[in-house]
Order: sequence, then structure tokens, then C-alpha cells
Amino acid sequence: MASEKGLTPRGEDFAAWYNEVVLRAELADYSPVRGCMVIRPHGYGIWELMQRALDELFKETGHENAYFPLLIPQSFLEKEKAHIEGFAPEVAVVTHAGGKELEEPLVIRPTSETIIYHMFAKWVQSYRDLPILMNQWANVMRWELRTRLFLRTSEFLWQEGHTAHASEAEAQEETQLILGLYRRFMEDWMAMPPLTGLKTEAERFAGAVRTYACEALMQDNRALQAGTSHHLGQNFSRQFDFRFQTEDGGEDYAWNTSWGVSTRLVGGLVMTHGDDVGLVLPPRLAPIHVVIVPILRGDASEAVLAKAHAVRDALANHGVRVRVDDRDTGSPGAKFWEWERKGVPLRVEIGPKDVEKGQLVVVRRFVAGGEEKKSFLAEADAVDSVPGMLDAIQAAMLEGALARREANSHRGVEDYGRFREIIEGDGGFVYAGWCGSAACETKAKDDTKATIRCLPSEEFRSADAPRSCLVCGDAATAEAVWARAY
Amino acid sequence: MASEKGLTPRGEDFAAWYNEVVLRAELADYSPVRGCMVIRPHGYGIWELMQRALDELFKETGHENAYFPLLIPQSFLEKEKAHIEGFAPEVAVVTHAGGKELEEPLVIRPTSETIIYHMFAKWVQSYRDLPILMNQWANVMRWELRTRLFLRTSEFLWQEGHTAHASEAEAQEETQLILGLYRRFMEDWMAMPPLTGLKTEAERFAGAVRTYACEALMQDNRALQAGTSHHLGQNFSRQFDFRFQTEDGGEDYAWNTSWGVSTRLVGGLVMTHGDDVGLVLPPRLAPIHVVIVPILRGDASEAVLAKAHAVRDALANHGVRVRVDDRDTGSPGAKFWEWERKGVPLRVEIGPKDVEKGQLVVVRRFVAGGEEKKSFLAEADAVDSVPGMLDAIQAAMLEGALARREANSHRGVEDYGRFREIIEGDGGFVYAGWCGSAACETKAKDDTKATIRCLPSEEFRSADAPRSCLVCGDAATAEAVWARAY
Repeated sequence: MASEKGLTPRGEDFAAWYNEVVLRAELADYSPVRGCMVIRPHGYGIWELMQRALDELFKETGHENAYFPLLIPQSFLEKEKAHIEGFAPEVAVVTHAGGKELEEPLVIRPTSETIIYHMFAKWVQSYRDLPILMNQWANVMRWELRTRLFLRTSEFLWQEGHTAHASEAEAQEETQLILGLYRRFMEDWMAMPPLTGLKTEAERFAGAVRTYACEALMQDNRALQAGTSHHLGQNFSRQFDFRFQTEDGGEDYAWNTSWGVSTRLVGGLVMTHGDDVGLVLPPRLAPIHVVIVPILRGDASEAVLAKAHAVRDALANHGVRVRVDDRDTGSPGAKFWEWERKGVPLRVEIGPKDVEKGQLVVVRRFVAGGEEKKSFLAEADAVDSVPGMLDAIQAAMLEGALARREANSHRGVEDYGRFREIIEGDGGFVYAGWCGSAACETKAKDDTKATIRCLPSEEFRSADAPRSCLVCGDAATAEAVWARAY
Repeated sequence: MASEKGLTPRGEDFAAWYNEVVLRAELADYSPVRGCMVIRPHGYGIWELMQRALDELFKETGHENAYFPLLIPQSFLEKEKAHIEGFAPEVAVVTHAGGKELEEPLVIRPTSETIIYHMFAKWVQSYRDLPILMNQWANVMRWELRTRLFLRTSEFLWQEGHTAHASEAEAQEETQLILGLYRRFMEDWMAMPPLTGLKTEAERFAGAVRTYACEALMQDNRALQAGTSHHLGQNFSRQFDFRFQTEDGGEDYAWNTSWGVSTRLVGGLVMTHGDDVGLVLPPRLAPIHVVIVPILRGDASEAVLAKAHAVRDALANHGVRVRVDDRDTGSPGAKFWEWERKGVPLRVEIGPKDVEKGQLVVVRRFVAGGEEKKSFLAEADAVDSVPGMLDAIQAAMLEGALARREANSHRGVEDYGRFREIIEGDGGFVYAGWCGSAACETKAKDDTKATIRCLPSEEFRSADAPRSCLVCGDAATAEAVWARAY
């Protein structure tokens, strides 16, 4: 544990820095249950803003929320062969309930395809009942050996979308619609621009035909899989006898998709924007946009406090999420430090002199190159300019993260030695040719711990398609992006 | 199962009617897991509106959301003696996870006092860290033998508030603040006016010092416990060593409260307002306020559809939740029937003649005495009047429910025979004196299945305080309200 003032610098030990930021910004805490965390109000406030934004995007595109049971009969999980192979080692099993041993053990959902498609099969008779576009916000459980706050916990919160369609083409369209929607959310709300693309067979969701993913590059140059969208084909509908009458009077199995993002995104946010002082929040996901710290000294206290509350009300009228820190504990300096550590985008300081001069001191948490951290503004100007400053900060954070991703993306790497040099050195995304064989994928992984994060979507592909496989030198069938990952 | 058109009438078999409404309005469905239900989009949409309203009320009063683990070590539950006695028979137990038997079994939370106060103890050092005002939206599990959709399911969704205070008086104030807030929500959003009061020892939450409850009267004259607010005293803080430094430099255990409402409220809504046609929703909790059904016939179809979409846009601009049912399946009559069954407050019908005349047909789901169900309104008037109609419907539904509750509340009952006559006849709330002994409470329950729902809050007490106990005739120590309950 670092001293009260300083965090372990990122450059020294990124993993230690990460844990310290999460704990000291009071985003989460360890719980007495192995691998499960407690999400504290500041962390949950961020998650609520993420939920609200995503939920609107889902609803705008015709999806509805529902809720399916936490417990799934073990026999359900076993129906789809690849699915159970993927999840069996990770499930938590309820064997007793109501004081008795259960006839059939129930597993806590690691994901809900099986029980959801069982229900869909009950509700759908004909093509007229399709598509079904559903989502649920829920907790899931995957028993993990090595856990990290937010990034990998045995229980986590997520949304899982599940849809059913009358044709393969429609299911494919849905899979990609959601991939695009996730990308938009990560760019426009999180200021965390991901790379998108198709997963290789080795990295595919257990039971999917195709898995698409958003891969974001953290500040330590490791990739974070931040969201996935799966085309499930008819794999589950066949096992759960989910058939429907087609428009031409025949019968077919439904085509499914599933997709999810989780509280892991909060960890991604920390590792994308945090600095050696603590958390840095993009305004759109900041539970508090502006904290006002009144400097209370003697006689002037009342006037200062009145001013703080007036500024708060004026900012709230501009739609700004604002809080006055008028606690009578702690020095102003200690308060500044606490809110910086918690990543609040703007701090307004008001002291007796500021009241006299009719000015406010506005301090930014995130500073782009060349900007001043601190500004002295006339009160009315300050209030009016806050919404614009928040927008500008949001845009600058995205720009900064994009520049960092591009600076650490290495295109056209053809030489395996050079690839190892990058991965084993500073890391980052390496774009290179791949022959399509699992053997080459495995060799690179065994040598360097880097995996193929994805075969990039068209807009991310290099102008010159690679000709040969990075590993074996045979003809390339696709461009792939390698990186070490969380 | 009743025929496709008609439900079992309420007067014939209220329980059968209830299940049919829930299933046919597509609020919920049975799941393959015993005692667990699936909440379908229409039911979940109602729950989302309930959540939004309650969440705002909690936040306005200074509460913050957080999230605590699903699984609780069995040893935690056992620390508070009354608590484990209450919950032990109902817990579901995880004995295996990650392919291994666990060293200590974990229970799926039936409620989270134990794990939450364990965490609070870690976070609080001094009175300056108090109060803590937290809430979580979560699923919980209580293994039930006899389950009913929404009313009693093994898994349910709820919110559980947990607070910690530096004094008993503050905790008591919080307990009653929340009771009042629940009452306001049930009246102003659900149009389900509850009686509030204190639970007797027999009906108290396992581990609480005092339990306050909202008790609503359903159409079959049985009571539904709709929300509870518990003053926990120092019962849990002592067991979880949750101490703090007091303002005068001493040390004390914290004073806790906990409180919750659940998806059971959706069941309460059905049983308060439903009729023999199906669900009837109060506008503030209706996922769809207005459904527009275009009557599409031949050449005029295009004009009718265009008008339907124009009216939709105009209503949406008034803040109305509106949907056009332009599905090409089913007759208009079948659509009318579907949306009535689902309780949508207003239906707008638009046919070729209406387009010609510039009128809309507006049909109400809920009709107060003397009102017309159907109105023919000029288009502009109709659009402008919808928000006011929705408000009027909301108010009329509350008024109707209040009148029903009062008509079925029997005050000043002194004779035990008369009490049995009421309870074993039409039912309802019986206000009568009680001596305070568990023996009298038990005798009445054994004789009639009625329980003391609560000792009513001051505003609900009878003008003349009862003098003698309904059961034994000894001096009354309080007024009590008896009813059969869900």
C-alpha cells in the first residue's frame, strides 16, 4: 500500500496503481466472499450512467427489457455441447434449498442463453411472432481463480441481449447493429475508442457461430475485451426445439444472437483515463460533474456558503450534476485531493476574496496539452461556460485516447522477431497477416502471451492487406490484430 | 383455463382470475425452475416505472445506490439469532463452485443485512462518517413451498435500503421517513392507498426491534403486505462489531434500519385495479399510455396510417408514452381486446371516416361512475386533452380504491362473533381493541386465519380508542387491524 498521499505510479506497477485507484476513489471494495466485490456508491453511480445510456440505445433500436431466473437446471446447460464445455468449470451449484437436497442441482447463471431460448420456444409459433428483441440487466456468476476488482470477479453485473429472428441474414444484421452500438457507446460516453472485429475460433463464445468484439487498448498497452456480440446461428434453437412456422408454410429453427457488456467497463474506464493522482472521469459518465468547495474562514463563511449554494442552483439549472462539499470536516486541501482522486471533472473554489471580486476559481481534472488547469472567471461567465467546458473535456479525452491507441498500433508488421520485440517491449496492437491456422495462433500465444484480439472490421483494416502469415510465412487469409490482453 | 375470450370472473374464483390476468396480459410466465418466474416485457416495463419513481424518491432524500454480493457465508447469517431462525428454512445453498466443494457453504441472499453491516463496520470509524444511507436494487431468494406469480416467488426482485445512524432517534426518524415515502408512492403512483402501522412481535422482521408496514386491501378483501421498514436497533451492529467513535469521544454501536419493496407490488397492482376483462393500469405506471389502432381498409389505408403516425408524434411531444399498433396481423377487434387485456389506459381508433371528419375515437380503459367509455373528439382537441385525461384517470383510480378500502374497513368491532362473521364472510379490515398478548393474536388466527396486519399509525386510528380486547375482553392496550392476508 502506498502512502496516504501518493499512489504507486502507473509506470512503476500498473496493476498496483489500478487497485489503489479503485479502492481509494471508493469505486469498489473487497468482500468477505472470495472473488466477489462490493460496488460502492461512486462506482455504482458510474455504472448507473452507463446503464442509462446503453438502455436508451437498446430501446431506440426496438429492444425491450425482461427478467429470467437466476437459477438454471444443470441439464439445460448440458444441452449445447460447446456451451457446457466452456462454462462447466466455472459454475456455482446450488444443491440444497428449503432445508432439503434438490433432486436436480441448479447452477447460478453464468449467462442465460439456455433458459431464455427455452422460454422463447414456448412463446413463438410463427414468423409473425419474430423477431424477439430482448435484454436483461442482471447479475451472473463465473467462478474465477484469479480475480481483479471490476475486471474479473466471480459475480458481476451486466446486460445480456437475446434475440430471435426468422433468417440468418437478420440475425447477422442484429449482431452487427449491436457491435456498432457498443462502439458508439464506448467512444461517445466512455471516451474509450475500441477496435472492433471478429474473434477467431479459439476465442469465440462457447456455442456461437461468430463472435464480434470491441477491444480497447489500456494505458499499459494491454487489450481489454470490452463487449461482445454473438451470432449463435441455430445452435441453441436446435437444442431447445425452438421452431417456428415460416412465411411459406414450412418450418425452421430460429436464428439467435446474444450480446453483453458488464461492470468490467468501469475497470476499462479507470485504465483508459486514470493518472498518477487517481481517477479521471469523462463528463458524460461522471456522477458529479462539478464539486464546489467553499473556503470557510471566520466572518465571511456565511457569505461564501450562500454564494456556493447560489452557484450550485445556477449550475443545476444548466443541467449540470453539481454538489457543494460543505462538510465541516477536513481542510479545503483535503477536499480538493479527495475529489481529484475520485475523478470529478471540474472543481469550483469559492473563498472570501472570490466573493468580493465576483469571481470563481474553476479547476479542471483533465487537462489537454497547452491548457491551464486553473482559471479565474467572472461568476456569470463561469456558470454559463461550464456545460461547454464539460463538452470540450469529453471531446478532448476521446481525442487523447484515440491518439494513444493509434500511437500504439503497429501496422504492417511482417517479421516475427519484430512482433516479439513489440509485444515483449512496450506492447500495443500489432496488425499482421495470419494464415488462419490455430497452430500459428497457439505458437504466438505460447511464445509471447499475445493472442489474436480480432480480425478487424473493414474500417480498421490496413490499406495494404498483408500477404503472409506473421508466424509461418504462408499466404495470409486475413489481417489479425495481436496483443496481450486482460 | 377459461376460453380465449373470457377470464374466470373475479367473483367466481379470485385466485384463478389473478393467474389468468398475469399470464394473458403477458406480465409474467412460469419458468422451468420451481417457484421462479419469468418477468415478460410488459410486466418488467411496469417494474421499471416503479423503480424509476422510487429511485427518485430515495435520491431526493439523500440515499445512494450500491451493490453487495449475491452470496453470503453461512456463518454470517448465523450471527444474529432471530435472523437465522427466520431465514434458515428458506435459504438456497451453494455447496460447489468451480468444480470443487466449497470449504464453507454460501447462501444466496434472502436479504442482505449481514453482509452489508459487515462492510459498513469496515468503512465507519467516527460519527463523522454517519449517517450512511444506501440502497440496492437486487434479486433475492427465499425458497417457498407455495408460490404465486409476483406475490410469492422463490426468487424476486426488490430494493433493500440499509442505513446506519449515530443515534436511536435518527434511526427511528429514518424508519418512519421511508414508511411515509412508500405510502406516498403507493398512493400517488399505484393508486393503491395502504394502511400503515406497526407490526406485532409475531409478524416482525427476523432481527428487527420494530417493523412498520404498508398494508393494502385487495379486491377480494384480503390484505397484501406491500412494503416494510424496519428499525433494527443495535441488533446487527453488535453481532458485526459495527462500532463508531461518538461526538463526545466515547464509543457506541451504530443504529441501523432496513426497508424494502419488491416485484410483489406488480401483483398488488393487478389485484387492486384489474377487472373481469383483464389488467387496468394507472397511467403513471403504464408502459404505454395510449395505443393507436388504425383501421386499415383498402384505398384509405395509407391516409389512415399517416394520420396515426401524425397523432403519435403529436402525443409524444406532449410527453405521452404512445404506440401505433400497425401490425398487419389480426383484426382491429383482436387488437382492441389485446390492449384492453394489457390494461393500456387509452385507446385511439382511427378509421377512414375519422380521417374524413378530422376526428379521433378515444376509448378509456378505466371508467368512473357516469363517464362515457368512448368519446368522439376533434383531432386537435383530442391530442391536447390526453395528458389531462390521464391525470384525471390516475386521480379517479385512487379515489375508487380509497372508497373501496373504506367501504371494507370495519371500525369499532367489539364482539368476537361479529369479527368472525366479517372475516369469514366478505372479509376486509377489522379495527378492534387488543390486549397486547400473543395468545389472543394466535387464537384469532387459529379460529379465522386472520392476523393482526398492524397497529395503525396515528392518522389511521379510530376516533374512539377501543377499550377492550376483541378476543379476551381485557383492557385494550392498542387498536389493531385484523385481516386475512396474502
